[in-house]
Amino acid sequence: MLRCCRVTALVILLAHPAVAAHGQTVNDPEARLAQLGLSLPQPNAPVANYVRAVRAGNLLFLAGHGECGNSRLTGKVGGGVPLDSAYASARRVGLCLLSTLKAELGDLRKVKRVVRVLGMVNTTPDFTDHPRVINGVSDLLVAVFGERGRHARAAVGMNSLPFGMTVEIEMVVEIDD
Amino acid sequence: MLRCCRVTALVILLAHPAVAAHGQTVNDPEARLAQLGLSLPQPNAPVANYVRAVRAGNLLFLAGHGECGNSRLTGKVGGGVPLDSAYASARRVGLCLLSTLKAELGDLRKVKRVVRVLGMVNTTPDFTDHPRVINGVSDLLVAVFGERGRHARAAVGMNSLPFGMTVEIEMVVEIDD
Amino acid sequence: MLRCCRVTALVILLAHPAVAAHGQTVNDPEARLAQLGLSLPQPNAPVANYVRAVRAGNLLFLAGHGECGNSRLTGKVGGGVPLDSAYASARRVGLCLLSTLKAELGDLRKVKRVVRVLGMVNTTPDFTDHPRVINGVSDLLVAVFGERGRHARAAVGMNSLPFGMTVEIEMVVEIDD
Repeated sequence: MLRCCRVTALVILLAHPAVAAHGQTVNDPEARLAQLGLSLPQPNAPVANYVRAVRAGNLLFLAGHGECGNSRLTGKVGGGVPLDSAYASARRVGLCLLSTLKAELGDLRKVKRVVRVLGMVNTTPDFTDHPRVINGVSDLLVAVFGERGRHARAAVGMNSLPFGMTVEIEMVVEIDD
Repeated sequence: MLRCCRVTALVILLAHPAVAAHGQTVNDPEARLAQLGLSLPQPNAPVANYVRAVRAGNLLFLAGHGECGNSRLTGKVGGGVPLDSAYASARRVGLCLLSTLKAELGDLRKVKRVVRVLGMVNTTPDFTDHPRVINGVSDLLVAVFGERGRHARAAVGMNSLPFGMTVEIEMVVEIDD
Repeated sequence: MLRCCRVTALVILLAHPAVAAHGQTVNDPEARLAQLGLSLPQPNAPVANYVRAVRAGNLLFLAGHGECGNSRLTGKVGGGVPLDSAYASARRVGLCLLSTLKAELGDLRKVKRVVRVLGMVNTTPDFTDHPRVINGVSDLLVAVFGERGRHARAAVGMNSLPFGMTVEIEMVVEIDD
């Protein structure tokens, strides 16, 4: 009887493509993070008279985030900072955004959808590969949230960013609670 | 009797200023597009791990769009790209945004209001005429949607944009369905 | 009896920290403005085919604002414009945003929360102190609205801005009416 039920459960698992892809972690972004070997950093305190996130209705607007913690990548892509370093920086900024979400929501399962990402890259004037930098955060969001992590995005080149950081990212998330 | 009714209809038509201006196309943006001799291009696929638009509640957030199709204007305004070429590029980006709206909504009449436009122009550091570039998309939106096309806007100068394109535009639209 | 009631009211007043700090102006941003010796400027007309603000549901999206009135600070921070001049410019832009809010809402008490501020600073490529510039508007918003003025913020460096202005600010506000 037990054996029969296990088989049934497996069939259901395989019949649902999303479950088949990620297993039981598909609806649990924090389990997915652990599965990826990632842990959330301590979010930075805002450096001025503002807050990390504000909720209005079901939308959560996150402040522009750089990397959190003690070090961050600085400098311009196209002018000394290699593309893969900038991609890695964008991914680390993504983890800081997730830290803020966790601090605001208590549980990342409350994220119904990542709505909008504005990826700002500190560049030289002739840089053209912004999408490949901001993929660092987009790939992370889709890895952690699955389809709910797919977002509308702009990836653009800034003339300068606070503290000379290479990547700053703003995000809007829809909440379900 | 028939003749009498036609006259009455005409009087009503003239009495309503919006109808008088655009005729019966005022509430049908797609008829208005045809009237303007414009057709919607095929929208580009996103160049990375994101989507063209995400809806949250009644708001539709569109990704940053450049020109779609096989060619697009590249280069910096104030540094080789003339103002009227940049205006025309912004208008073509507007058509791509409309293509995305059509693909997402099925019918442009579902647009209740164009809410926000962020017009990003690839410029030299001393350029100052951003509004005249981004008018390319603003004029199109008002021509197609009438009063419902009037939006809150920022027109700003970027240091660089993906693929060297001259204009990238992000948009938020309110939906009524 | 009357005397007794006054004392009770005073005790209640002191017991509530927000009231103790700002007195009865805490829920009246316009009284708070007067207390700060500030008056709202006449808002500028949009310079093109758009509007100053669009409401969608309970969110009010404000267009990118520069300083209003007859003069405005121009030039790049890090290249001739001192930091404290840029801070003062950001504060004046903040007053223009408040003027637009007053014109749209009739009464600033309808602001439930300042949600998001995008502070765009016209800079040289190596500028790093954007937060200290955009504090000009953030400090004003918190002084006028108290806790309801605390917002999610990004402060970033643009390559160029319309008319060469030093600071342009976009804002999203939640409305309660």
